[in-house]
Amino acid sequence: MASLPNHPPRNAPGEPRRPHRTRVRRNEPGASPGTFFTPEGASPTSTYWMRFDAQRCESGQLASPTDLRQLVDPQPGEVLWLDICGLADRDWLQEVAARFAIHPLAIADIANVPQRPKTEEYDTFTLCIAQMAMWHQEALHIEQVGLVLGDRWVITFQERDEDGDVFEPVRQRVRSGKGRIRAGGADYLAYAILDAIVDGYFPLLETVGSHLEDLEFAVLDQPTPETGRVIHELKRTLLLLRRGIWPLRDALAVILRGDTNRFTAPTLVYVRDVYDHAVQVVDMVETYREFAASLMDVYLSAVNNRMNEVVKVLTIISTIFLPLSFIAGIYGMNFDTSKPGNMPELGWPYGYELALGLMLSIALGMLWVFHRFGWLGKPPREPR
Amino acid sequence: MASLPNHPPRNAPGEPRRPHRTRVRRNEPGASPGTFFTPEGASPTSTYWMRFDAQRCESGQLASPTDLRQLVDPQPGEVLWLDICGLADRDWLQEVAARFAIHPLAIADIANVPQRPKTEEYDTFTLCIAQMAMWHQEALHIEQVGLVLGDRWVITFQERDEDGDVFEPVRQRVRSGKGRIRAGGADYLAYAILDAIVDGYFPLLETVGSHLEDLEFAVLDQPTPETGRVIHELKRTLLLLRRGIWPLRDALAVILRGDTNRFTAPTLVYVRDVYDHAVQVVDMVETYREFAASLMDVYLSAVNNRMNEVVKVLTIISTIFLPLSFIAGIYGMNFDTSKPGNMPELGWPYGYELALGLMLSIALGMLWVFHRFGWLGKPPREPR
Amino acid sequence: MASLPNHPPRNAPGEPRRPHRTRVRRNEPGASPGTFFTPEGASPTSTYWMRFDAQRCESGQLASPTDLRQLVDPQPGEVLWLDICGLADRDWLQEVAARFAIHPLAIADIANVPQRPKTEEYDTFTLCIAQMAMWHQEALHIEQVGLVLGDRWVITFQERDEDGDVFEPVRQRVRSGKGRIRAGGADYLAYAILDAIVDGYFPLLETVGSHLEDLEFAVLDQPTPETGRVIHELKRTLLLLRRGIWPLRDALAVILRGDTNRFTAPTLVYVRDVYDHAVQVVDMVETYREFAASLMDVYLSAVNNRMNEVVKVLTIISTIFLPLSFIAGIYGMNFDTSKPGNMPELGWPYGYELALGLMLSIALGMLWVFHRFGWLGKPPREPR
Amino acid sequence: MASLPNHPPRNAPGEPRRPHRTRVRRNEPGASPGTFFTPEGASPTSTYWMRFDAQRCESGQLASPTDLRQLVDPQPGEVLWLDICGLADRDWLQEVAARFAIHPLAIADIANVPQRPKTEEYDTFTLCIAQMAMWHQEALHIEQVGLVLGDRWVITFQERDEDGDVFEPVRQRVRSGKGRIRAGGADYLAYAILDAIVDGYFPLLETVGSHLEDLEFAVLDQPTPETGRVIHELKRTLLLLRRGIWPLRDALAVILRGDTNRFTAPTLVYVRDVYDHAVQVVDMVETYREFAASLMDVYLSAVNNRMNEVVKVLTIISTIFLPLSFIAGIYGMNFDTSKPGNMPELGWPYGYELALGLMLSIALGMLWVFHRFGWLGKPPREPR
Amino acid sequence: MASLPNHPPRNAPGEPRRPHRTRVRRNEPGASPGTFFTPEGASPTSTYWMRFDAQRCESGQLASPTDLRQLVDPQPGEVLWLDICGLADRDWLQEVAARFAIHPLAIADIANVPQRPKTEEYDTFTLCIAQMAMWHQEALHIEQVGLVLGDRWVITFQERDEDGDVFEPVRQRVRSGKGRIRAGGADYLAYAILDAIVDGYFPLLETVGSHLEDLEFAVLDQPTPETGRVIHELKRTLLLLRRGIWPLRDALAVILRGDTNRFTAPTLVYVRDVYDHAVQVVDMVETYREFAASLMDVYLSAVNNRMNEVVKVLTIISTIFLPLSFIAGIYGMNFDTSKPGNMPELGWPYGYELALGLMLSIALGMLWVFHRFGWLGKPPREPR
Repeated sequence: MASLPNHPPRNAPGEPRRPHRTRVRRNEPGASPGTFFTPEGASPTSTYWMRFDAQRCESGQLASPTDLRQLVDPQPGEVLWLDICGLADRDWLQEVAARFAIHPLAIADIANVPQRPKTEEYDTFTLCIAQMAMWHQEALHIEQVGLVLGDRWVITFQERDEDGDVFEPVRQRVRSGKGRIRAGGADYLAYAILDAIVDGYFPLLETVGSHLEDLEFAVLDQPTPETGRVIHELKRTLLLLRRGIWPLRDALAVILRGDTNRFTAPTLVYVRDVYDHAVQVVDMVETYREFAASLMDVYLSAVNNRMNEVVKVLTIISTIFLPLSFIAGIYGMNFDTSKPGNMPELGWPYGYELALGLMLSIALGMLWVFHRFGWLGKPPREPR
Repeated sequence: MASLPNHPPRNAPGEPRRPHRTRVRRNEPGASPGTFFTPEGASPTSTYWMRFDAQRCESGQLASPTDLRQLVDPQPGEVLWLDICGLADRDWLQEVAARFAIHPLAIADIANVPQRPKTEEYDTFTLCIAQMAMWHQEALHIEQVGLVLGDRWVITFQERDEDGDVFEPVRQRVRSGKGRIRAGGADYLAYAILDAIVDGYFPLLETVGSHLEDLEFAVLDQPTPETGRVIHELKRTLLLLRRGIWPLRDALAVILRGDTNRFTAPTLVYVRDVYDHAVQVVDMVETYREFAASLMDVYLSAVNNRMNEVVKVLTIISTIFLPLSFIAGIYGMNFDTSKPGNMPELGWPYGYELALGLMLSIALGMLWVFHRFGWLGKPPREPR
Repeated sequence: MASLPNHPPRNAPGEPRRPHRTRVRRNEPGASPGTFFTPEGASPTSTYWMRFDAQRCESGQLASPTDLRQLVDPQPGEVLWLDICGLADRDWLQEVAARFAIHPLAIADIANVPQRPKTEEYDTFTLCIAQMAMWHQEALHIEQVGLVLGDRWVITFQERDEDGDVFEPVRQRVRSGKGRIRAGGADYLAYAILDAIVDGYFPLLETVGSHLEDLEFAVLDQPTPETGRVIHELKRTLLLLRRGIWPLRDALAVILRGDTNRFTAPTLVYVRDVYDHAVQVVDMVETYREFAASLMDVYLSAVNNRMNEVVKVLTIISTIFLPLSFIAGIYGMNFDTSKPGNMPELGWPYGYELALGLMLSIALGMLWVFHRFGWLGKPPREPR
Repeated sequence: MASLPNHPPRNAPGEPRRPHRTRVRRNEPGASPGTFFTPEGASPTSTYWMRFDAQRCESGQLASPTDLRQLVDPQPGEVLWLDICGLADRDWLQEVAARFAIHPLAIADIANVPQRPKTEEYDTFTLCIAQMAMWHQEALHIEQVGLVLGDRWVITFQERDEDGDVFEPVRQRVRSGKGRIRAGGADYLAYAILDAIVDGYFPLLETVGSHLEDLEFAVLDQPTPETGRVIHELKRTLLLLRRGIWPLRDALAVILRGDTNRFTAPTLVYVRDVYDHAVQVVDMVETYREFAASLMDVYLSAVNNRMNEVVKVLTIISTIFLPLSFIAGIYGMNFDTSKPGNMPELGWPYGYELALGLMLSIALGMLWVFHRFGWLGKPPREPR
Repeated sequence: MASLPNHPPRNAPGEPRRPHRTRVRRNEPGASPGTFFTPEGASPTSTYWMRFDAQRCESGQLASPTDLRQLVDPQPGEVLWLDICGLADRDWLQEVAARFAIHPLAIADIANVPQRPKTEEYDTFTLCIAQMAMWHQEALHIEQVGLVLGDRWVITFQERDEDGDVFEPVRQRVRSGKGRIRAGGADYLAYAILDAIVDGYFPLLETVGSHLEDLEFAVLDQPTPETGRVIHELKRTLLLLRRGIWPLRDALAVILRGDTNRFTAPTLVYVRDVYDHAVQVVDMVETYREFAASLMDVYLSAVNNRMNEVVKVLTIISTIFLPLSFIAGIYGMNFDTSKPGNMPELGWPYGYELALGLMLSIALGMLWVFHRFGWLGKPPREPR
């Protein structure tokens, strides 16, 4: 289907991995709680930091896990954002856990991808797990983000480094110092990050939506076997998006209900806004899912209709030519015309023309019958 | 399908845009909260005002955003209705926000269409987002309305100006001064506007319902491939209406529960009424959706049945003429009748008539068998 | 399908209106609250009254709306039942509203049919809206009943007069004076009316149920295209019944919860009983809906199976006769047998019998193969 | 389908009634509350009694309704169990109601079968309605049981006498005096009866389950039209079981919540157990329903696949023999070979063999193409 | 389908029993509460014990039920884990019940497999019923585990001994003494066991997930009848997993809500973690179920599309050769060319070539029409 060359969920041939495959957390059953494993496909860890208050903003990269020990605690008014990209190196995770007193269960939740999005309150920090959806190299990428919010610091753990993230506009706002972000405290930064994750679903949904619009035209005009597959792939993409956003909505509701007290009242106004966005994403995902299901129905009925047309062509042709051939066969019989009663027509003058006329009458009669049945419509045009 | 020439969701050829397409809010992920963008397809802003109390009623249009600053605050007993049509001009939005102290998040919700309908309480105003459904030039138009209710003023933001709105009867009631509307205060005006929006769904549903009735006859009598498409389009229309009315019902429930205190007790009696209407719309949408799904089933079974009939015609024709042609072929063989045993029938007197009689017997026998199977019903009439 | 001649949802030919069509309330959006319109198909108003206490019982008919003003208020121990049949005359409605101080919104709910069934508490009365389902002239009739319960009076508003109602047994009980009805007060009368409405669904469900039983036999034995349509029509009837009974159940629950205090404790015991009946109706409607859906599946599979059989007959006939005709065609070729190698079989003695024998062997071989495939079952019997 | 000869929901031919048909309560709408009717198919009433305390146990049968008046009230420590089988005799019901002061609404609920299972608390007794599911003469029997629990007595009303019941083990336990049943009081006896009813669903579900297992093999190996019907009948059986057990679970929950105070705390521990069993039955019914739905999908796809195979056989045969017959037809033409250019092949030596060779090449080429398409698999074996 | 040789739910031929069949608890209805039966397929009982405190760890096996009486009560700080594998020996169950004062209803729940997973609080112990899912010899095994948690002891009852369990890592952790398990008390041990059960679902889901991924490729590339069956079997497997995990999640929620007070606060933090895992399993099961349903749709549409192609091939061949054969039949007629007007073409020079040319033109014309209809695509490749 040439009109959908860039359709996301279909990988180019030769591409080694399907990034949006439904992943299952690999965990050894019965392992000690807090045990974590290097997730499949995780990238080596790079750690970036950003430290800012209303006036200043510094940033940089940490070279090795031990550098964490030299990290100065953020002062009042100051916020530290540690962005840990890639979960392949256990040392980094262990050092971070030690440095910021992160509970082993929390670290296990962060490292054992994929987790279901959730918010959990611990004594000294709040843990949010979210799934970041991105459009990357013409394919959907779902990447887990673990966000740990402490008193004056935020740590984000990204599953992979090389696929990029949706946080660049947030970093930009921190650097530029516009808006409330510099003065809003760590909870406002956490809000801004969650907001970027939720809003990242909108462009994806827009893409899915415009694919569905295109598909609708295709289904109604020229359905191909390909069409059915693409509908299925969109349903699958929506299933994955839904699996990421439904629990995230609940996780945001937990924050909003005040079950965690690490978000201040002014920030909660904004969290309500991101919660609304999540509800809207859920809403759209469900609408698109129903729409795709309806499209599938129409597609199946279109396939049936086409078959109907093909069978009708076959029936018309057979119904016309079988009787004609039968008559030709009659007059091809070799009865001995010298015996009485045997095929006198063969000896009639202009018997041939009479036979042809009979055939023509039969053919025209058949066509008239088909016309009355309304079968003589245009046969369907098959798409390439 | 000539009997549905005015079917709403199908655009006339050459019409450039499908007004009811499923829209996705275009938002840059990670943008600062309160950021808003000019929505695609928004029209330039025109601002109308109406100022009335129990005795008087004035109205007019503002020429430029700066005129807002000269606007006198409404006095006690007076109500100001500002109707801002078209969201294309940022200046207007910013000036309105400044003049009436509207929170940036509220303005962003108003401007970033489409939003999910909702009610939100702010310190100095209540924000309602709703989707206004209209029938316009033979097509469904969904247009977002943002309603901001202050102490003595109501501001409505319409997405587009040129498509009209459903508020004309409300304006008429204000001008005529009949009923409670002049003396009811700003909350009563807000109620009247919400009521007009909800009641605007009824004529649409009536149209959908009568289309479904027509389709039912079409499906039962003469199903065409077109029929399946129209059912799908109605399902889609219902999906869009549902997406507009479900959350609106919840938004009205929020008002009704008294979560916002800007509606007075006498007005709440009327809000209960509009809530009931919304419930009824939801109810009808769901009923129609089930009805459309059942119609699709019947349509598919009708298509199958028709194919069944066509295949039966083919089978009958083939089953009669293949044996007959075979016999004709037999007597068309060129075995040397001078050799013993070779086709003596050819030399019989009246062998030809015997052969024809044999063929006729076979044909009649076949027809009798088909009659016993009950296959000789009327073939289906195909619609144009 | 001759066995279902009286099937309810199918109207006799020539009958002008489908009484059970899904109706949409016609309301002008934005109209003043309390505005009402004469519903389409409403009949002229006739007003009957009944006044009784434990000892006496009188009844009669009012001639004109102004007669209402002479109506004496019921005394303590007395109950007045005003039965207003037909909503076409606005005067009646307005006079009744004036005489009994009925709120304009309540009158609008009563007059603007169809409304969703509900219970609403006003200061001086309780409003119940219900949908009365009746079997009338072989068709389902859904008619709205508005019931207004005051201190010592009950007013029922029926949409149409000529279709009759389900209240006759209640009137009979009042006249005969048996049971509690004369001494039970106005709330007991209201209960009795609601009970008659709910119980009126049972005979309809019994009809639907026995149609489903018949259809099941038809689907399993001799499915016709008609069968699919009748299943669809039953589903539609169930959809309409469901739309009437679901909200009625909720309306009864509102009474039962004691949200309205116009029902006394002894009457509430009976309301619990009618509530149970409503739950049972809901239960049966849902069961029948699932049953009908399952029937539709079986029907579709039966249609497919039948097509399968027809195609098999075609295949068997073609597979037997195409090779035979081919052989006959071979020996009908005109190769010059005087040239060496050309069709020596034609000159063999008994070559004809050999050829026929070859054909017979092929046919028998084919039949044996089909027998081994199990294809030689009886072809399906097609119903008329 | 010979492997399912004893399938329950299908009645033997000649059997006059389908015992598991979906029944509708026949009630005259508007009848006085407490009115009851002799249910269709009810059997004449037989009344058995059992009177026991920790030491003794007596039992017998009452001859006529008036014998009830001589019945001595059970003493403290004593329990009376009256088992009324068959609801056809109104006298019995009225005498029982009079003797034990049972409310008319309760008696009506007991007599007007079928009722939705429920628990209702009256002043002097508790009413439980349940549906008893039994396997009887190769068919599912659903029979209503009304259980009235008083202070020291339990009355059970069975719809029919001749179909037996599931209480025999309970009677056996009472007679043998093992376990707590003799000393447990009337509430324990009521529990034991309810437990027997709920546990009676398990053997039915086991039968349904093993039928589903058999069907699964049938669907995957040799699907017949019969298979689709049997799946439908199992779905129907499950629908009936579900309708009996869902509300029974709720009725047990009402007891468990302590809404009725006639069950003592020690008995409630056992009621919790029977509630768990009911939940388990519900769970299994739902699982089986989903399983049956999935089976239906597989069955439909198997039917489609089989048709696919049949059509493929037809296509292969036609595609091979139509061209061959065409060639034979060519050389059967009667062009005058004495004229130049007319069919010189006919006069070639060995032209016949050449023509046969050409036909063979075409046939082999076709077969090779089909082989490449993978069409030459084994045709499907059709079951009897 | 050679690419899925190890597919779990399909047993190897000759394997006597399908271990994952949907089992129904065999219970005699009306039996005394607390009665239990030896479950079908249960293995003889082996009893292992483990006794540990922070310092020491001993383990062993009990030879006979009477050995239980010599078992010393665990001291404070000590935990006793009794692992009873195989429920075939009633003596063991009775001795255990007597030794640890386990309520008869609890023992009956443990022995009468399968039970719905649940948590029940008794006076001296807490009972958890769970379903352990294992991958064993290429097939899914569901085995019931009853866990009884007392003050300082845990007893696990496994249905079978020979299928192994998922507790080995837990035993290993106890033996090695790493982590909190030695010092955590009996409730921590119970947590660890439940955690092992829940985590045991993840590898199964991973297997199911990768099968679904493989199937998706199969469905899109080369759907076979086998594909439909395998999708159905995966749906069935998911149904069984779901039946095990949904109620287990609820059972964990009961613990988490603190309805049982046998779990200490520090352990509850870990129970929250295992609860999250259960939610995640539920989530994945539901996602996979939807995915499988969508795959089934695509599979059915692929089957339809293939049939469409086959029918198209048939139609093309018939449509080309039927007219050609008819023309050949015409010129095979034996009209007497000596009579005027009879088949003069036969006597034309080069009439044969003209006839062949006519046929070729018709065939090319047909092909051109089919080309315009787009029917001349590649026929479908049928998989083996």
